[in-house]
Amino acid sequence: MKNRVITISREFGSGGRTIGKKVAEKLGIPCYDAEIIQEMAKKTGFAPDYVKEAGEYAPGSFLSAAFSNRMFGPTNEDILWEHQYKVITELAEKGPCVIVGRCADCILRDKADCLKVFIHADMKFRAERIVKVYGEREQSPEERLRDKDKRRAAYHRLYTNMKWGHAQNYHLTLDSGVIGIDKCVDIIAELY
Amino acid sequence: MKNRVITISREFGSGGRTIGKKVAEKLGIPCYDAEIIQEMAKKTGFAPDYVKEAGEYAPGSFLSAAFSNRMFGPTNEDILWEHQYKVITELAEKGPCVIVGRCADCILRDKADCLKVFIHADMKFRAERIVKVYGEREQSPEERLRDKDKRRAAYHRLYTNMKWGHAQNYHLTLDSGVIGIDKCVDIIAELY
Repeated sequence: MKNRVITISREFGSGGRTIGKKVAEKLGIPCYDAEIIQEMAKKTGFAPDYVKEAGEYAPGSFLSAAFSNRMFGPTNEDILWEHQYKVITELAEKGPCVIVGRCADCILRDKADCLKVFIHADMKFRAERIVKVYGEREQSPEERLRDKDKRRAAYHRLYTNMKWGHAQNYHLTLDSGVIGIDKCVDIIAELY
Repeated sequence: MKNRVITISREFGSGGRTIGKKVAEKLGIPCYDAEIIQEMAKKTGFAPDYVKEAGEYAPGSFLSAAFSNRMFGPTNEDILWEHQYKVITELAEKGPCVIVGRCADCILRDKADCLKVFIHADMKFRAERIVKVYGEREQSPEERLRDKDKRRAAYHRLYTNMKWGHAQNYHLTLDSGVIGIDKCVDIIAELY
């Protein structure tokens, strides 16, 4: 029998990671997020920070031509994708869990009994939140969000051929800014 | 103070209308659906069946060129849109309610305190459901759904400039096929 897995896709700054952790705590099952990055770093030899970025985002526009240029064989992103695929499949085979991001919804399509969730929020909510959680940067929070959104959507399109953020790809999508993080946790935990 | 309104956008065959009616019953507030069509028919003189179709769907591909051709003034769809806009605004001003479809989420953007919901389900669930609810037609249920989806999305794009079915446009989206109609009702009513 397939394990029951909650996959949480999320917009940067929407609190999807926090929601994933709280849902897992409530249900008494593990939540995988940083663990996936550590495991991939170990397997590939890439630095964890590099894995974190390149395993979920297309490179910035400066490098976007190189992103899909496979004239000289698989790109670093291709290698990471292969490992990400394996690590996530193995985790889902271990037992019920919550997996945050990293295209798990798509990777586990036929491998687990998934509840597929997408968390989003408006620009204002996310901008305030990323400054609170990650601090100020040179780029304005709005610019950071637009850049992250664009690159995450491009990454998804390339590796999963799915439209990121399209309601039909998920069983449930929630606006965490309007509904509130704790209420999102309740709804997801109850549906599971 | 603005009235609290639940707007339910939905894919054809997903049970969104049934969900809207049940939510309204549970909350003891009115649900507007056929009422909007009757009111528009009265105001415009068009037949209710015509209003039902042309107030939510772009014409089939055969007529799509004419759809946006306003060389000779506003089209029937433009006239209907104007009345739809007025009727929905008036209903929302009367008091808290549920409104099914007809771009109410967009029309009431600044006019009501909306909980914006989108209901969808996969092709198999909807195909079985439309045969059960509306009976067999010459076209296969899958063809009917594809046609309806395409024309509803086109209608939305023209009149609201919003992407229909894009998670970010709603506070909550639900897969009624996986979650079940009654559970969808519970989640929406509780969030309200």
